[in-house]
Amino acid sequence: MPDDFERMWTDLSPVGRSASSGGYFRQPFTSSERELHGWFVEQCEARGLRVESDDFGNVVGWWDAPLVEEVAQQPSRNQGILTGSHLDSVLDGGAYDGPLGVVSALAAIDLMRARGVVPARPVGVSVFVEEEGSRFGLACLGSRLATGAISWADARVLTDRDGVVLGDVVPGGASSLLASVGTFVELHVEQGRDLVDRGEAVGVASEIWPHGRYRFDFTGAANHAGTTRMEDRADPMLTYAMTVLAANKQARLAGQRATFGRVSVEPNGTNAVPSRVTAWLDARCSTDDALAALVETISGQASDRADRDDTSLVVTAESVSSSVAFDPALAVAVAADHEGGDWPIIPTQAGHDAGILSAAGIPTAMLFVRNPTGISHSPLEHASIADCLVGVSALADTLERLAR
Amino acid sequence: MPDDFERMWTDLSPVGRSASSGGYFRQPFTSSERELHGWFVEQCEARGLRVESDDFGNVVGWWDAPLVEEVAQQPSRNQGILTGSHLDSVLDGGAYDGPLGVVSALAAIDLMRARGVVPARPVGVSVFVEEEGSRFGLACLGSRLATGAISWADARVLTDRDGVVLGDVVPGGASSLLASVGTFVELHVEQGRDLVDRGEAVGVASEIWPHGRYRFDFTGAANHAGTTRMEDRADPMLTYAMTVLAANKQARLAGQRATFGRVSVEPNGTNAVPSRVTAWLDARCSTDDALAALVETISGQASDRADRDDTSLVVTAESVSSSVAFDPALAVAVAADHEGGDWPIIPTQAGHDAGILSAAGIPTAMLFVRNPTGISHSPLEHASIADCLVGVSALADTLERLAR
Repeated sequence: MPDDFERMWTDLSPVGRSASSGGYFRQPFTSSERELHGWFVEQCEARGLRVESDDFGNVVGWWDAPLVEEVAQQPSRNQGILTGSHLDSVLDGGAYDGPLGVVSALAAIDLMRARGVVPARPVGVSVFVEEEGSRFGLACLGSRLATGAISWADARVLTDRDGVVLGDVVPGGASSLLASVGTFVELHVEQGRDLVDRGEAVGVASEIWPHGRYRFDFTGAANHAGTTRMEDRADPMLTYAMTVLAANKQARLAGQRATFGRVSVEPNGTNAVPSRVTAWLDARCSTDDALAALVETISGQASDRADRDDTSLVVTAESVSSSVAFDPALAVAVAADHEGGDWPIIPTQAGHDAGILSAAGIPTAMLFVRNPTGISHSPLEHASIADCLVGVSALADTLERLAR
Repeated sequence: MPDDFERMWTDLSPVGRSASSGGYFRQPFTSSERELHGWFVEQCEARGLRVESDDFGNVVGWWDAPLVEEVAQQPSRNQGILTGSHLDSVLDGGAYDGPLGVVSALAAIDLMRARGVVPARPVGVSVFVEEEGSRFGLACLGSRLATGAISWADARVLTDRDGVVLGDVVPGGASSLLASVGTFVELHVEQGRDLVDRGEAVGVASEIWPHGRYRFDFTGAANHAGTTRMEDRADPMLTYAMTVLAANKQARLAGQRATFGRVSVEPNGTNAVPSRVTAWLDARCSTDDALAALVETISGQASDRADRDDTSLVVTAESVSSSVAFDPALAVAVAADHEGGDWPIIPTQAGHDAGILSAAGIPTAMLFVRNPTGISHSPLEHASIADCLVGVSALADTLERLAR
């Protein structure tokens, strides 16, 4: 089984990898991400899993349960145990965020079969598209569409940086992929240092912090960078710069998170005062109220500065996800599947498809695998093979119990 | 003659204009800028001007002097009177910066001919390419190549944002366009408020402030925007933001100019702490020493902040132009060509091809036409037709005297 995991990992390693940074560019519906999806379907078929896909590009490979009498007499709804993650990456991301959950799911099925497990319920391995929102701007797009958290009418007009519309990339329509799913378990590389600090290889998620993406449009007046006196300017770059520092300070003071990692400037010429700066705030907090307060404080300070800079500011919430508390009983049970003492139960600040399925009413759990660098969304993201195999074993234990 | 000016102006008005902003995108060797060059050659031919071009894309249309005996006996070197400007624009620029000087030069020849002037020296109308540096990053590229201020070996490797190399766009080689030029006069729209404040339609340049472009490479470590604690980050966006505010403050305190109008972020994803921010400082000062001191102060404050942010900073001077003092006697003479009292003689903070020709030892003068908005490098840049015609008349007066 360790060989299977490592062979699959080696298969994926070169796909979409930048030779210069070592990071991954696996944006949805690009050739690298499609290659990964093709690989996933092949892996499912090699295992005799029945492949289903929907009109949005989400895929599930089902290990169907044998039709034993007591199961066949029950309705099929809510019988399925689903596990999996995503194969897309952020721009210049790491190897583990997403693919570790997919590869571990396949490896867990291999391990269960090697143990002689015969599931009484179907076990599926899922791949949801555009989890990172790196192309069409909305994180967990595939799982939102599959659960109906966003309608196709709203999603089809989403546009990437090159002006490509989602509706021209996938057919769209409906999804019945989750109709038979009763439980979802997502394994994911940890994206912080909690497990490193605790000295544990694996942890179980308690909750996802509420988080949101907010577009800040700062508008000023383009002008000549040489001839325009400093006092005659309406320079939106100044308002933006102060907002970056304010966001950082407010998040530090409150023990929360606020980041400006993406910015777009017009005309973006060296010798021109900009006419417009558009930037995206990523904010995450321990409670919904704290998130609303943090964004309000940052927006207020930005607006005050805009008044002083003679610029204007419009803040638009592009997506806001409320706090997700995973099924507490399920988390306790998953943590207890470990023979050497319970796995720790910890919160995360990262959004996941698991959060979307949980919010849609599907009992959901997450397993995290220790990341020794604590770094994520970066080529430096990492997990040891030894820890990954502990994760596979933990996932197999959980699936085995759930599929009884 | 007013009709000629307005007809030419109407010809140019739609070329390279953005329907959304109303600004101009006339980057060198793009279709819109090539259309303007084609128009210029047609205008020269319609006036019987002899068109010369060089291997870099610079063009001059010559009104050759008749071979009267005393002129023919003199050597041809340093006989020519050159006037003109450029046709390229910054990204989303105004209509006047560049084209006003070219159109006014053609209109001045029309006016001289209408006045019955027969020049004793050849009068040329020039168009230099890539004055703004908006594509290949080096301002006054065409005039630098024509004067030898930059060698073709150094210039041919310059690269635009799409990775296109200058050497693949123009043949390159040598230029003899300026071999016979004894004096250069460039008419240009004013880019500040000096003439507005003085209530004058036209002014004459005394000097160009020293100025430079400096690339600031801020390097940190990419990481997840949600899971990474604020205190664990090495976020180069913070260092950049503080540098923007420091540059503005230092320039204000010193009565100089400092602008960050162009920035590029990697990976530029909403949910990733950036790994790198590259930004360009445009700095302009009244003296060379003040420029060096301003850039040193800004760089020093940026480096101090980088230490606190756990990021690193490299500052690279991409181009630095020393102070240019235009020929003082020529400026006084040009100012005195006005019958209603001398035109004011004023400094400018903007670079011009006139500065390059002056630095190359060619006696040079500049005429400015009032810009009622005081705004430049923007769609809001403006000059009234009445003021433009005063400019044409002033230019014709100067050319007539110089060509005697």
